[in-house]
Amino acid sequence: MFFQIVDILGTIAFAISGALIAMNKRMDPFGVLIIAFVTAVGGGTLRDVMIGIEPVSWMRNMTFVYVIIGSAAFAVVFRKRISYLRKSLFLFDTIGIALYTVVGVETGLVAGLHPLICIAMGTMTACFGGVLRDILCNEIPVVFRKEIYATACILGGLTYFLLLQFFEDRNYLFVIAGLVVIIVRLIAVRYKISLPTLYKKDEDIL
Amino acid sequence: MFFQIVDILGTIAFAISGALIAMNKRMDPFGVLIIAFVTAVGGGTLRDVMIGIEPVSWMRNMTFVYVIIGSAAFAVVFRKRISYLRKSLFLFDTIGIALYTVVGVETGLVAGLHPLICIAMGTMTACFGGVLRDILCNEIPVVFRKEIYATACILGGLTYFLLLQFFEDRNYLFVIAGLVVIIVRLIAVRYKISLPTLYKKDEDIL
Amino acid sequence: MFFQIVDILGTIAFAISGALIAMNKRMDPFGVLIIAFVTAVGGGTLRDVMIGIEPVSWMRNMTFVYVIIGSAAFAVVFRKRISYLRKSLFLFDTIGIALYTVVGVETGLVAGLHPLICIAMGTMTACFGGVLRDILCNEIPVVFRKEIYATACILGGLTYFLLLQFFEDRNYLFVIAGLVVIIVRLIAVRYKISLPTLYKKDEDIL
Repeated sequence: MFFQIVDILGTIAFAISGALIAMNKRMDPFGVLIIAFVTAVGGGTLRDVMIGIEPVSWMRNMTFVYVIIGSAAFAVVFRKRISYLRKSLFLFDTIGIALYTVVGVETGLVAGLHPLICIAMGTMTACFGGVLRDILCNEIPVVFRKEIYATACILGGLTYFLLLQFFEDRNYLFVIAGLVVIIVRLIAVRYKISLPTLYKKDEDIL
Repeated sequence: MFFQIVDILGTIAFAISGALIAMNKRMDPFGVLIIAFVTAVGGGTLRDVMIGIEPVSWMRNMTFVYVIIGSAAFAVVFRKRISYLRKSLFLFDTIGIALYTVVGVETGLVAGLHPLICIAMGTMTACFGGVLRDILCNEIPVVFRKEIYATACILGGLTYFLLLQFFEDRNYLFVIAGLVVIIVRLIAVRYKISLPTLYKKDEDIL
Repeated sequence: MFFQIVDILGTIAFAISGALIAMNKRMDPFGVLIIAFVTAVGGGTLRDVMIGIEPVSWMRNMTFVYVIIGSAAFAVVFRKRISYLRKSLFLFDTIGIALYTVVGVETGLVAGLHPLICIAMGTMTACFGGVLRDILCNEIPVVFRKEIYATACILGGLTYFLLLQFFEDRNYLFVIAGLVVIIVRLIAVRYKISLPTLYKKDEDIL
């Protein structure tokens, strides 16, 4: 129950963030709805399709469909005042990636995949909605360029599997992994920590 | 039989539209063929993969493969004269999205999905070939920015499920839903109706 | 055994090429790793998902995961000196697309698909990792614009099915098909042969 409410808060944050960026790009209402959808469910859809869980999750749970449509409508109606919500949305978003990471890791575990693949699935669930959003908006995905975002998800996933060596209760471990994601992200944003950009070569090799 | 001919006309229109845009982008013949393919079958492929119908439809029906290859070749050979066909192609394209919408809705129904998801599948089948085409050509998908296009598909899908409350014969309903798509699109283009672009914010929130 | 080593060499070349292009785009280390991954396994992933082989191949074979992570790390560490490897990498890459083509054709055959679809699967396996890499880096895919690259894969696939009319031993045919891919690509690069760009129209039709 608690998890489900948090999951819905995360979905709301993702959908609103997608809708805002779509409006920035001067899309029409249909485009705004699609981008909201893709941001919220894109990562999980990729994960499900690659693992073979079909029809993909959101097609079988209408709650999320309604929440996303409602969030997109909310973002459109209150687009001028939404900056007051900036802090709440950032918090929802951070909680969202934590929960999406945990859901992705768990989905990988249920499918019997290797721990490294499970961590990849968790990171993909949390981050690839944003990647698809940026591709549809014709941008280089922001997650590849700045901010500790995916790194927080990877660290959360690693924590889970490290602790699994010592503890058995998976539910607690999921909570701890999620908290690691949240704390790493909050610290990174608070202290403006980001991964370094690597050397820019002048030309390609291949 | 009638349906199949219309379906092929739609596929031809989509493939030619893809080939023309690829030539606009100065792609080589291989690129032109791929973009023609993606435009014609991309939406249905996404739908099949997300529902779990695999191998995806076009891999099991060589008619479409031959039609697409032929259409791309036709577009390449007659690229200088194809503007005479402008009106026919627009008509084929409009018939195409109507039929693709109906096929998508039906595929969702057969998979036992919720009506809203079926409408989404219909719209995806009709519109996401063009979305993928625009992504491969490095453009913001045109369907998100202008013209009543996806909206026509959504209205067609809604009509189907509204009438399903009152009538039973699904074949007639499919025809009516397809006609709604065609009429909405023709009226929108004739009177230059489009959805409004929403407020442009100066910066992102998340 | 021989095949597996060649396959790994190809994967290394793809992963390094992806990592270099990601560094060119000033991505952070996480972005570099993802692009390396997508370049190396993207084509096979698309193929598996469209045919319905899930979980997709790389999730079930950790060797490739380790090889890709190692290659990306290598590319990051030696990014300033990697131009000395230019020729080796080009050779690995060429061997890589030959082997990926053969693997893709074989996967299609095992799934009982039509020869034309098998050739498409081979070409997709070899080329679409690079296509996805370019999309994530916000470029028009290079494979659609220049160089005999996909064409070599298509010719290799055609050779396989032509010879299948006369010979029975599939293993030999795979080797021959792979050699055709390599030779066509080497000749094309050596003599700077490329497919012609087609006529650029001034405006779209549809």
